[in-house]
Amino acid sequence: MKPDGGSLIGFGSGGPGGASFKAFDPARECFIEPSFPSVAPEDIERAVQLAVSAAPAWAKLPGAIRAKFMRLIAENLESKIDDLVARAMQETGLPEARLKGEVGRTAGQLRLYAESAERGDWLDVRIETAQPDRQPLPKPDHRSMLRPIGPVVVFGSSNFPFAYSVAGGDTASAFAAGCPVIVKAHPAHPGTSELVGRLVLHAVHACGLPEGTFSLLFDSGFAVGQALVQHPAIKAVGFTGSLRGGRALTDLAAARPEPIPVYAEMGSVNPVFILPGALAERSAALSDGLHASATVGVGQFCTNPGLIVLQRSPAAEQFIQALTAKLTATPEATMLTAGMKKAFVSNTEKRSRQPGVTLLAQAATVSACGAAPLWFETEAKYFLGNHELAEEIFGPSSLVVWCQNRAELLTVAARLEGSLTATVHAGAAEAAEQGDLVDRLADKAGRVIFNGFPTGLEVSHAIVHAGPYPATSDGGRSTSVGTRALYRWARLVCYQGFSEELLPPELQRANPLGLRRLVNGEWTQQPL
Amino acid sequence: MKPDGGSLIGFGSGGPGGASFKAFDPARECFIEPSFPSVAPEDIERAVQLAVSAAPAWAKLPGAIRAKFMRLIAENLESKIDDLVARAMQETGLPEARLKGEVGRTAGQLRLYAESAERGDWLDVRIETAQPDRQPLPKPDHRSMLRPIGPVVVFGSSNFPFAYSVAGGDTASAFAAGCPVIVKAHPAHPGTSELVGRLVLHAVHACGLPEGTFSLLFDSGFAVGQALVQHPAIKAVGFTGSLRGGRALTDLAAARPEPIPVYAEMGSVNPVFILPGALAERSAALSDGLHASATVGVGQFCTNPGLIVLQRSPAAEQFIQALTAKLTATPEATMLTAGMKKAFVSNTEKRSRQPGVTLLAQAATVSACGAAPLWFETEAKYFLGNHELAEEIFGPSSLVVWCQNRAELLTVAARLEGSLTATVHAGAAEAAEQGDLVDRLADKAGRVIFNGFPTGLEVSHAIVHAGPYPATSDGGRSTSVGTRALYRWARLVCYQGFSEELLPPELQRANPLGLRRLVNGEWTQQPL
Repeated sequence: MKPDGGSLIGFGSGGPGGASFKAFDPARECFIEPSFPSVAPEDIERAVQLAVSAAPAWAKLPGAIRAKFMRLIAENLESKIDDLVARAMQETGLPEARLKGEVGRTAGQLRLYAESAERGDWLDVRIETAQPDRQPLPKPDHRSMLRPIGPVVVFGSSNFPFAYSVAGGDTASAFAAGCPVIVKAHPAHPGTSELVGRLVLHAVHACGLPEGTFSLLFDSGFAVGQALVQHPAIKAVGFTGSLRGGRALTDLAAARPEPIPVYAEMGSVNPVFILPGALAERSAALSDGLHASATVGVGQFCTNPGLIVLQRSPAAEQFIQALTAKLTATPEATMLTAGMKKAFVSNTEKRSRQPGVTLLAQAATVSACGAAPLWFETEAKYFLGNHELAEEIFGPSSLVVWCQNRAELLTVAARLEGSLTATVHAGAAEAAEQGDLVDRLADKAGRVIFNGFPTGLEVSHAIVHAGPYPATSDGGRSTSVGTRALYRWARLVCYQGFSEELLPPELQRANPLGLRRLVNGEWTQQPL
Repeated sequence: MKPDGGSLIGFGSGGPGGASFKAFDPARECFIEPSFPSVAPEDIERAVQLAVSAAPAWAKLPGAIRAKFMRLIAENLESKIDDLVARAMQETGLPEARLKGEVGRTAGQLRLYAESAERGDWLDVRIETAQPDRQPLPKPDHRSMLRPIGPVVVFGSSNFPFAYSVAGGDTASAFAAGCPVIVKAHPAHPGTSELVGRLVLHAVHACGLPEGTFSLLFDSGFAVGQALVQHPAIKAVGFTGSLRGGRALTDLAAARPEPIPVYAEMGSVNPVFILPGALAERSAALSDGLHASATVGVGQFCTNPGLIVLQRSPAAEQFIQALTAKLTATPEATMLTAGMKKAFVSNTEKRSRQPGVTLLAQAATVSACGAAPLWFETEAKYFLGNHELAEEIFGPSSLVVWCQNRAELLTVAARLEGSLTATVHAGAAEAAEQGDLVDRLADKAGRVIFNGFPTGLEVSHAIVHAGPYPATSDGGRSTSVGTRALYRWARLVCYQGFSEELLPPELQRANPLGLRRLVNGEWTQQPL
């Protein structure tokens, strides 16, 4: 499998379009064939109209068919893993093992969400049966459930070329919920995107699904994404990327005549609080663990630990010294794009000039797109007074914040911005006393971690990948990872007074799908 | 109980404040004592800071205590029903029976949402237990649930002085979810608002809840509401009212440095499709039912049937003739405010001037704030080409849309804007063939009604009071009525790797609250 360089518009391909671009190999510092033309406005419109025409069929598509389709995409990804990973290695500079693992995770997500679609419990079916004789007024029959929201747009992310791109979590959860998907490919890995897109399209054909189920659009700039978010027929948007990009899309969507939700996961600083007891118990293991978590993937994870909060003590200073030695000895690795390397340089230079901030550790970098750990330290008083220090630097740079005492550490916790994760490392004896700290962090993060590290994300029923703004655009009410991700693509509909033949199967008396339903206030899988 | 005319700021009262206003009696056309000063900026700030300081205690308040508090508010409302209704009658012009019924509904809502808080099933607790030996990486323990979002602001509505005002559905669901509430009273019924606010405050004291649990703010204009929505410590907003008001608040909230959700229910046209078979079977009962639904409360319900869609036929013309006779003979009744009467006059005048629109029925009106049915009719071709005809007129005015045939009727259905409800009346023989119409309407409304009428709203687990924009600001993903309303005031939090003593009781191994939890993919009430 090799990419051709064309947008996939329903079952067809895009016309000549606008400015072309090529992928860039950040490790070898060269452009890669083929060229990808930016999609033309008429092809955007065609992709949207095809999605609109596919939406009614998708809204009625049984969960079992959605599941079959998604499982076939997963199989397709696995069967072409070598071609996919070869292209993705060129386009992202990520190592083979990581990319193979990511294809596996992507297939796993598709299967987990397929199971949700098939099982249907997420639909929140609720039934209140009629009471025709109720006084003073009869009670009508009410049956309600979640229903797919309609055509959605997904923006591929730069840092997960598989798991949060063309057939990634947003696309998989939207398919599971019953929505046609238009993907705007990330321009950093267009070839990988096209290959995955063709595997999705193969599954569309193999399952006999309507044209418009899926389209994949390329663009060298921002115009196509903006046009999609502003198109009146688009009902919701999924995005994983920068705060600036996510906020721009959210603002566009909020200003539409009909505002729509943008589910933007915009990264975060992921504070890690390391308490005295943890240092006393396991200083060496902690510095190994934190070093690994902060350097994996060249720090290019949205859960990268970007803020390390400690109380000043000899043990803490020794811990940071040991960590510094490991950081300084860390070999450079290739960043995803030349632009990211440029931003990393400029953001770390800016940070180095902030009052009260000093360089803590710097490892050697020689290649153009390479980066290596570049850490800073400061006192809590500077951190609390300077918003710049609360901002994420994407890449292998973290900030150590020194607190004078417990009270100052709690103040830092209370003044944090929203984050995807927040971590506490405590010793056995002090663990039970961390309630105040944990409560503060639960106000600030979608996932609070005890004696663990933020990187490495389970995709499960219980996981939450969310957080108050600026971690996500919707304040952490939804998650972009885990089976709860389906809820983003649905709205509530209640059927009043309907007879069986007009009700969706989910709401029928016989409960043909065997769903768990809330019937007159009690959860049951029984028929009425 | 008589109102004093002061904002309730935590346990204290508001200072002198800004411009004062009085309630207006729309039936007797006179102002009513006392004066209510607009709350001063420093009192707004105090109310918010008190809510901020109450929020952590509220986040940990057991559901059983929340429930006790809410049930006490319900009891207080019932025990003071005569005082409440006497004042509300003066301020709203609504009849005694309706207002007594509304107090009952408000108490019922409080008790239903109290039961949800106590039961805790809405918290969506999910647990994935650790697998320390999993290869290649151990699986950590993940436990997640919904957690209250923090201080919220509720705007009282004009048309439900009890059920969607100070202790109404938004406030009750926010308390049930665990959030402190600041209510901005609707200036049309400040006395009623103050009396209810004092009953809420009584329950706060009686249950020993913290100051800041509840505040009630008065304002003659918009400044206080705007300041609240823009305050950085406010995390969500509930609103029931006009499209213009709701959109203004939604835009303000979306433009904040940290955007927050505004759950605005903004009314709708609630289309009613009357099919040939229904007319053949029960023309007289239909015109009685539609007349009652369209005139109850002088048409001042957000579920008022504002659009009647029919295929042209002798039977349909006869039906509309009979309905017209009833409409014309309907006595006038007092609208809620002088401003609403003014808007009704101006909106109906504007509609009467639209191309293709003719007057269908007009009943006599003599009093200044009185209104009576004033209906129009038009052809589908005019309706489809003129957005003004798709807009709601608040009050007793509906538009009959004549279609030439079934295809045109389906086109009207497909081109509707979002609505809270959509209704189909069909005869027995044609019912089974309405799938295409019902599917179109399910795309457009939060509640689809078969052979019923849109007014009259059950408050239950299964009800949905929502709909795509412009019916609601969030596209119908949440509901403002029914137990799902709690979800609006919460966000997801996952605890990773925690030991028992630091976990909230909802997530503990022993399941001390007896919650239904998703444990390793299966729903169970058992301990781990």
